[in-house]
Amino acid sequence: MRKVVLGLGLSLDGYIARRNGDIDFLIHPKDYSMRPFLASVDEAIMGRKTLEDGLRLSGGKLPKTPIKMYVMSRTKPPGERDGVIFVNEPPAALVARLRKHRGKDIWLMGGGEIARDFLKEDLVDELYLGIAPVLLGEGIPLFPSGFPQRGFTLTENKTYSQGLVALKYERERGKTKPKKRK
Amino acid sequence: MRKVVLGLGLSLDGYIARRNGDIDFLIHPKDYSMRPFLASVDEAIMGRKTLEDGLRLSGGKLPKTPIKMYVMSRTKPPGERDGVIFVNEPPAALVARLRKHRGKDIWLMGGGEIARDFLKEDLVDELYLGIAPVLLGEGIPLFPSGFPQRGFTLTENKTYSQGLVALKYERERGKTKPKKRK
Repeated sequence: MRKVVLGLGLSLDGYIARRNGDIDFLIHPKDYSMRPFLASVDEAIMGRKTLEDGLRLSGGKLPKTPIKMYVMSRTKPPGERDGVIFVNEPPAALVARLRKHRGKDIWLMGGGEIARDFLKEDLVDELYLGIAPVLLGEGIPLFPSGFPQRGFTLTENKTYSQGLVALKYERERGKTKPKKRK
Repeated sequence: MRKVVLGLGLSLDGYIARRNGDIDFLIHPKDYSMRPFLASVDEAIMGRKTLEDGLRLSGGKLPKTPIKMYVMSRTKPPGERDGVIFVNEPPAALVARLRKHRGKDIWLMGGGEIARDFLKEDLVDELYLGIAPVLLGEGIPLFPSGFPQRGFTLTENKTYSQGLVALKYERERGKTKPKKRK
């Protein structure tokens, strides 16, 4: 089944952007490439605020990509415009709909409110986090409070230059402790 | 000079304890030992709330340790009682006072409010973080907002069993970009 992967860069204190949406603190060391990850997904989901921050940072136009972009918004009318597909449906319904067709994994691009909504409904199958070696002191949190505890299994931990730490986790569902034999 | 090391276990979403102070989510894999770290410090600083959580979790009595424990409190009278030394002075004054005598490093044990106070005054020289593979969704944050940006250099990244990730960082102070030659 196509997995939903929450994939983002963040500061060591858990912020995906400064209060104003800037992501200048994220690092892109030469020995790190996003290509393998980008090749593993073909659809992406983001929130309306993340889209607007992205547009602002890229000068009003999103970079061209073969990845189909879904933007969750309660205020924008649904439909395809300007290279993205606006949707207005609950996270579980959207994921179920995307899973009806075959494809690669689904990239959950953020931001924090969307991450929380998806975690609340236990729709996040994997985490792929790139941790920058800086404490910002304030910003937009990747994991704002308001979802139940979710356990994960670490599947990858890599160190890149400039102090980037890339962590991969898989959601650990329904794992129960082995029963004691009598 | 004796370094101040903020050393703590935390959840992947940055909590050092549940709302009620519980730390049951922290993991202690067999292949990980705190001994080298404990051998590198001989004094520790914690907040009054962290002391109270510690006392509650250990049944009213702190475990015996050769590490001298300082507890920062604005309400408790200063002085040595019950195996700890209560202090009521600004973080910078306390650190300056401890540094007047020779010794090993100083362990900043938390919690979050104390971490923020120390980061605000740029008194944290190292971070030593053990990240458990779980999102709690709520709890007591290690890095509550309210201090200026602080850059660090990653010095160690180790993976232990059960998915524990142990990260060490050194504070990067006054680093300026190399000037271009004309």
